[in-house]
Amino acid sequence: MASLRDRFEHAITPAAFRSYLAEFLSTFFFVFAATGSTMSSRKMIPEAPMVVDPCGLLATAIATAFSLSAAVYVAVNVSGGHLNPAVTFGMAVGGHISIPLAMFYWISQMLGSVFACLLLKLMTVTENVPVHGIPDEMTGFGAAILEGAMTFALVYTFYATGDPRRGAFGTIGPLMIGFIAGANVLASGPFTGGSMNPAYSFGSGMVGGSFKNQAVYWVGPLIGAAVAGVVYDNVVFPAQTPEDAIRGVTDGIGV
Amino acid sequence: MASLRDRFEHAITPAAFRSYLAEFLSTFFFVFAATGSTMSSRKMIPEAPMVVDPCGLLATAIATAFSLSAAVYVAVNVSGGHLNPAVTFGMAVGGHISIPLAMFYWISQMLGSVFACLLLKLMTVTENVPVHGIPDEMTGFGAAILEGAMTFALVYTFYATGDPRRGAFGTIGPLMIGFIAGANVLASGPFTGGSMNPAYSFGSGMVGGSFKNQAVYWVGPLIGAAVAGVVYDNVVFPAQTPEDAIRGVTDGIGV
Amino acid sequence: MASLRDRFEHAITPAAFRSYLAEFLSTFFFVFAATGSTMSSRKMIPEAPMVVDPCGLLATAIATAFSLSAAVYVAVNVSGGHLNPAVTFGMAVGGHISIPLAMFYWISQMLGSVFACLLLKLMTVTENVPVHGIPDEMTGFGAAILEGAMTFALVYTFYATGDPRRGAFGTIGPLMIGFIAGANVLASGPFTGGSMNPAYSFGSGMVGGSFKNQAVYWVGPLIGAAVAGVVYDNVVFPAQTPEDAIRGVTDGIGV
Amino acid sequence: MASLRDRFEHAITPAAFRSYLAEFLSTFFFVFAATGSTMSSRKMIPEAPMVVDPCGLLATAIATAFSLSAAVYVAVNVSGGHLNPAVTFGMAVGGHISIPLAMFYWISQMLGSVFACLLLKLMTVTENVPVHGIPDEMTGFGAAILEGAMTFALVYTFYATGDPRRGAFGTIGPLMIGFIAGANVLASGPFTGGSMNPAYSFGSGMVGGSFKNQAVYWVGPLIGAAVAGVVYDNVVFPAQTPEDAIRGVTDGIGV
Repeated sequence: MASLRDRFEHAITPAAFRSYLAEFLSTFFFVFAATGSTMSSRKMIPEAPMVVDPCGLLATAIATAFSLSAAVYVAVNVSGGHLNPAVTFGMAVGGHISIPLAMFYWISQMLGSVFACLLLKLMTVTENVPVHGIPDEMTGFGAAILEGAMTFALVYTFYATGDPRRGAFGTIGPLMIGFIAGANVLASGPFTGGSMNPAYSFGSGMVGGSFKNQAVYWVGPLIGAAVAGVVYDNVVFPAQTPEDAIRGVTDGIGV
Repeated sequence: MASLRDRFEHAITPAAFRSYLAEFLSTFFFVFAATGSTMSSRKMIPEAPMVVDPCGLLATAIATAFSLSAAVYVAVNVSGGHLNPAVTFGMAVGGHISIPLAMFYWISQMLGSVFACLLLKLMTVTENVPVHGIPDEMTGFGAAILEGAMTFALVYTFYATGDPRRGAFGTIGPLMIGFIAGANVLASGPFTGGSMNPAYSFGSGMVGGSFKNQAVYWVGPLIGAAVAGVVYDNVVFPAQTPEDAIRGVTDGIGV
Repeated sequence: MASLRDRFEHAITPAAFRSYLAEFLSTFFFVFAATGSTMSSRKMIPEAPMVVDPCGLLATAIATAFSLSAAVYVAVNVSGGHLNPAVTFGMAVGGHISIPLAMFYWISQMLGSVFACLLLKLMTVTENVPVHGIPDEMTGFGAAILEGAMTFALVYTFYATGDPRRGAFGTIGPLMIGFIAGANVLASGPFTGGSMNPAYSFGSGMVGGSFKNQAVYWVGPLIGAAVAGVVYDNVVFPAQTPEDAIRGVTDGIGV
Repeated sequence: MASLRDRFEHAITPAAFRSYLAEFLSTFFFVFAATGSTMSSRKMIPEAPMVVDPCGLLATAIATAFSLSAAVYVAVNVSGGHLNPAVTFGMAVGGHISIPLAMFYWISQMLGSVFACLLLKLMTVTENVPVHGIPDEMTGFGAAILEGAMTFALVYTFYATGDPRRGAFGTIGPLMIGFIAGANVLASGPFTGGSMNPAYSFGSGMVGGSFKNQAVYWVGPLIGAAVAGVVYDNVVFPAQTPEDAIRGVTDGIGV
């Protein structure tokens, strides 16, 4: 019980609140750019459906890669730079973040996403926020597997990036996280939209006004993230010393 | 009074002049590539309006990301690599640069932008320089908020990048500044054009011959930048030691 | 004989198995994104032939650059990050990896590629996996030379990246490997498809159901890779000390 | 006289020959990708003129950025990674490379470019190599100024990158060189084609069979490069110690 209480107290320190703000802001930056770029393409080609054309998809993919890299980068020293409930879940499963802390991370990420979509909807006046969805011929099960496999790649990259044993390679980690996400958007655009992030899908679903297929974007990514963490920590690159302690919020700078 | 005089004297040293030249040149490089890429797209699709199509917007966004990264990179050790009156304003609000110095930075940045647009207009002969503008259905207020939110993200990234507590992550900072700017261009292209930089809008406005909506590109970014600086320095990542001194021009190399 | 036996034993240690898994996963990530992006373009422009249009090719090239960078990055500390039988062959010719180990690397890479294509085919339901091929006017010989020249550039970059004498430059090595591959996809798209990777062509050939021209994607890359290794190690940058030992699997972290 | 003889002897050592080979190979890699990407776009849209459309230009710009980054990266520790007679000229004007050495660098770069174009022409059978040119309404003088201004930016970035006083920022230097070149291609595509490299224009001119406007691509870049070197070394960032010695070929690793 003491342990549980400690953990909750750990989640309401000033350092923890700074982490929540960092998660909120960075998720805002990322969802703003990713959702906004899709809205831009649609405004320019109004008659186009969900995903416009190869160029519109390219715009969304590059906005994703660039903004996710930068948003992870600015948050990494404060909150670890998750920006994604699936990443936080993967870190919790691996024991790198406590459950209470993870819950507040989720809330911060979802709020950041909702506010980004809200700002876009209000300011652009006539445009609606695009919601992640799947084409008729695909099943929700297949879509969840696709989203799960892509989130596996994303969270696996996240684990590799944060690994202190990588030395100087850690420097370009935020870049690589953005790149794998951008590449996966290109691979899955007309199929599932390439979310890999429940908060991202939640925000656009809430503001866009449709929660159809929402489960696809939660179940797939959460399972994919958990498996990625387990595989990385236990199979591919098992820790040989106990120095691989809980990562997350520390007294100021910590990953 | 002595302090004010010291500050002015600080602004007319050789090191300060080198900083102004670095700001002038780097702003020139950035505005040349960003404005030139939009002119290229228009020349290739002459019948297209302001922002051409998803591919034309993509060209402008990538030119922005690539050239801003490189231009910040080459100036960062000399002047800090602002290239943007909003960034300089945000640094002044945070106390990292003195007011007289900031004024000369502004002048250097605006001159760099004007010269870049002038060169493009004169050399390409038949093309006009594109001016930032907003579509009919948007209000100036909404556009200013959009530009302000995007400049917030840009200046927040700038602050994170220059933070000496980030260690090795600082290395890819200029890249991340370019990336967040490029992503925001994709998000806002058909709405506000994605300037986030008053000097950039001023140069194209002056050479393109229209100052309509110019206020949007000054008020929004300046406020967004000031808020970003305050939030970063005081809330997300407050300094614990006084070693976080005035950044800007030092005796040669200084950020 | 003892040496041979030692080598085989070296190939079935836990560290070696971790390397195989790392190669399998990273090749999966890369082939998934590269093949998936081509399928995405085709789904959006269904009437288009093999390589869609400049935008579709751009999507494939950027997916290649981004995903290969990230996939090499996450594997580099575990298996060296080959993800490509040609790279492994080039390393074997240079004596940086033993033959038994190289054989298991090949199998891991081919399995990763096949599984990625299989997942895409099953999940997208109506789409077929695109197979590398060459246009009518080209000969297989010319295509093999083109693929060989591009693989030369890729493996030469790989050698330069892994060179311990490069110091801090090594940090951005995985990025450069992805970039040279992406650039070559843009250069060769409508001619050979820009594979430079026998495992990639094997996986899409097997799941796509055609091994026509498969030899082009093995002979060219393998020869190009071997020549690149020999040129780098012996001509451009010969080792001056014997510290340039066998690279590959070590006791955990090793390149 | 002794000095001159020493310099010539300096230009025919094994280390110097390794530098020539590194310049040859890297220029080959760069010109192959940049020229090949333009040929790819034309093959896919056969009716298109010189520069295809925004997407075709984007393909060329990204191929330039990616391949130049990687090609500079692999050569930087051996030859300094010039790949461009204008860069070599700018370094010679600044006294960082001797004249005899610079002459052999030029020859290596031009040969690399010619061979890359030749390979593309022979292997793609029906495609011709695109030659840099300017539209009717532009004058050669204006085009030379545009190419000169862009080469100024490129060589200025090159100088900043190689500056040993930049510390850890040097790491992403090759990336920034590729980025500024790619951004400038986007800015100038339909006007001058964005060469900034006499060897690149020479190779495509020779294999494409037209030397019309060739002077534009020599005079502009060479002057721009020389001015960039003088400005960087003497005005923006003057050396305070004599440790900023001749850069170029040393006994193995040297920039």
